[in-house]
Amino acid sequence: MAIREKILSTIISCFKRHGAVTIDTPVFELKELLQENYGEEAKLIYDLEDQGGEMLSLRYDLTVPFARFLAMNKIKRCKRYHIAKVYRRDSPSIKRGRFREFIQCDFDIAGQYDPMIPDAECLKVIHEILTAMQVGDFLIKINDRRILQGIFTICGIPEIKFERICSTLDKLDKISWEEVKNEMILEDGISPECVNRISEYVQLHGGQCLIEKLLKDPKLAQNRLAMEGLEDMKLLFEYLTLFGIVDQVSLHLSLARGLAYYTGVIYEAVLLCQKHGHLNESLSVSSVAGGGRYDELVAKFGSKRHKVPCVGLSIGVERIFSIIEQNNEMAKEKIRTTETQVLVATPQKNFLTIRMKLISELWNSGIKAEMLYKKNPRLLEQLQYCEETGIPLAIIIGEQELNDGVVKLRDVVTRKEVNVPQEHFIEEIKRRLEKHNT
Amino acid sequence: MAIREKILSTIISCFKRHGAVTIDTPVFELKELLQENYGEEAKLIYDLEDQGGEMLSLRYDLTVPFARFLAMNKIKRCKRYHIAKVYRRDSPSIKRGRFREFIQCDFDIAGQYDPMIPDAECLKVIHEILTAMQVGDFLIKINDRRILQGIFTICGIPEIKFERICSTLDKLDKISWEEVKNEMILEDGISPECVNRISEYVQLHGGQCLIEKLLKDPKLAQNRLAMEGLEDMKLLFEYLTLFGIVDQVSLHLSLARGLAYYTGVIYEAVLLCQKHGHLNESLSVSSVAGGGRYDELVAKFGSKRHKVPCVGLSIGVERIFSIIEQNNEMAKEKIRTTETQVLVATPQKNFLTIRMKLISELWNSGIKAEMLYKKNPRLLEQLQYCEETGIPLAIIIGEQELNDGVVKLRDVVTRKEVNVPQEHFIEEIKRRLEKHNT
Repeated sequence: MAIREKILSTIISCFKRHGAVTIDTPVFELKELLQENYGEEAKLIYDLEDQGGEMLSLRYDLTVPFARFLAMNKIKRCKRYHIAKVYRRDSPSIKRGRFREFIQCDFDIAGQYDPMIPDAECLKVIHEILTAMQVGDFLIKINDRRILQGIFTICGIPEIKFERICSTLDKLDKISWEEVKNEMILEDGISPECVNRISEYVQLHGGQCLIEKLLKDPKLAQNRLAMEGLEDMKLLFEYLTLFGIVDQVSLHLSLARGLAYYTGVIYEAVLLCQKHGHLNESLSVSSVAGGGRYDELVAKFGSKRHKVPCVGLSIGVERIFSIIEQNNEMAKEKIRTTETQVLVATPQKNFLTIRMKLISELWNSGIKAEMLYKKNPRLLEQLQYCEETGIPLAIIIGEQELNDGVVKLRDVVTRKEVNVPQEHFIEEIKRRLEKHNT
Repeated sequence: MAIREKILSTIISCFKRHGAVTIDTPVFELKELLQENYGEEAKLIYDLEDQGGEMLSLRYDLTVPFARFLAMNKIKRCKRYHIAKVYRRDSPSIKRGRFREFIQCDFDIAGQYDPMIPDAECLKVIHEILTAMQVGDFLIKINDRRILQGIFTICGIPEIKFERICSTLDKLDKISWEEVKNEMILEDGISPECVNRISEYVQLHGGQCLIEKLLKDPKLAQNRLAMEGLEDMKLLFEYLTLFGIVDQVSLHLSLARGLAYYTGVIYEAVLLCQKHGHLNESLSVSSVAGGGRYDELVAKFGSKRHKVPCVGLSIGVERIFSIIEQNNEMAKEKIRTTETQVLVATPQKNFLTIRMKLISELWNSGIKAEMLYKKNPRLLEQLQYCEETGIPLAIIIGEQELNDGVVKLRDVVTRKEVNVPQEHFIEEIKRRLEKHNT
């Protein structure tokens, strides 16, 4: 939990740095409203029992509730983050960071703005967070649903099969290209010729050069949607250059993302290599962040005229937890679970009341302090508690100190002790803690 | 949300100051396990639909899941806090801070310790939090289930009715003593003589003098349980004196608390009077914190031999939100919803790329910055955005500044502007923000 707290606070501070507010939506949504929006995945939604009242389900992600919130409250612009639990009736896998209840960390920008500026900021946010996490090298794969649709069209795939083909393509992080091709032919009913034509495109990946090349592709040039997507992609890459993150971003024409609601740019961040050789393979290939543009979702929940274009991202924080925990375990790093700064201790019997007075003064001064809940604890036990839990300072009071009007201040690591006049001990502790922090 | 965040962070920092770790338990519990532990209130539990697998319900509070967690993991000692949502199929009332989904803030100390030391700390934690909230004067009412049971016994109430009578007494914050008396006679089937005898006791309240008086009460003296409770209460008041909070604590023999699992000390904090005349009555009488000792709950969930005495508290944070929001509305205080420190602005067209480069530098230096997502926004619009959202600083870059190698730094409130060399603008902003914070 201490690691999780630290990771979440890093993520929150990045979201705030980008001017986002937090909005909380309920864990329940109307069952009906959820069933419609996740395609095949809807079977994983948790429903509540009918105990009278509305038919409710537990939220499956934070995007649909956000869009519902914008629609209901007729909000036209909003930059929000939301860190909360979502629920899926899935087969859990702790190693891969896959659970039935897990935290999502979402950041979204809603509103009609000039093209690609919010999209570039979302990629910058992912980049800042993954850099801060120190999980090693990463790559942000990027694509655009319009480019994909253009490719599908010129390859002769009927429009009705676009969504299906996106889902199949999305399996590329789990199965090989050969297997995906087979599935397209055998299960999705696409002709081998079509699949071969798609194959030529979706294996391409690269940066600004690839975009220039595709813009000149004579077949793609006939498709208005693909050209729109490519022009935007070109602009986006210019912005990413200004943000200094273009080297970690790459256009991957195979990136499709499973969810149906995306309408434009889509992206997914993957970790590139093992850090200190610790990551096992299953982790190193999975995506740790993703997102994209969904311009039509808000209009689905309210008035058709209340259109609010949105772009957002989700940090795969459970996977990041797993990776960082594994790294820590390997490095045998000891993580403190509390933040306690001072233990109030005594070597003698019948000093409980004095200890209680002293600890009360510490708490009232905002210092994090503990004492053992025993009338007469042994000194050794108290000092061991400091060492076990990583408390850096102990104040020790006994007969001698009481008579001299001092408290003994002990540095737990160096074991050095000094006497400090009782009227100055708070100041002295604060001074030491400050030094300790810098 | 901004107010909520601030309140929660105050509460968390108090919990951490007292050395607590946070533990997260799932939002689901086994249906069976919840049904048994809330008596009559169990009808308010939300159940999940049977979709295969276990029969689950949503957690009703954080205490039962904590006790279940200690039992399952065979933990003997733990000081934890947990801030999370709980669910009740209740009639919501926004004014009174009563919802179907709401946050609970719990702090509990589990373990076998010397008497009343953890109990005193729980009261100190409540005192520190309510003081920090600045919601006006408050009183912590305190009682002990053992004293109550002793009183019931010597008043001739059969043991089988104790729980029932506790529930009835608990209504005293909603209905008058006369009505409670009637309910005891008419609904709980207690004789008027018994009720009169109880009446004499439960109307008593006071401090250490009352405890001394009760210790000498000849009838109570015959009841071992009551005497145990009173001796502990005496000790507790000594500790509260050492903690300097005894003036806000008062023994109220009418305090019963509804939940069945309490076994010793119980307490409830109420706000005493209106602050600035803002509170409406329904709020001013309701409790804002409560808790008590539950020594038997852990053993119910695991091995009977794994007994872990616990004491804890819960902050009624939704009520505190309502009160502080009402106070703010009355005071017409404007609350900032974001923490953005700098807006990157321009008076001229075609400065988007320059703005993007500058904002990227700000973000990379950890400064909270925004810009408008427009290629060519008007300067007035940009400055108005600062004023509306409370952003204290703007950096303005145009042709002139670009040629001079400077940026213009504008203090939004005073409207003073100075030019700062481009290579120093980050430093200068950091210096100003630091000054701003102190």
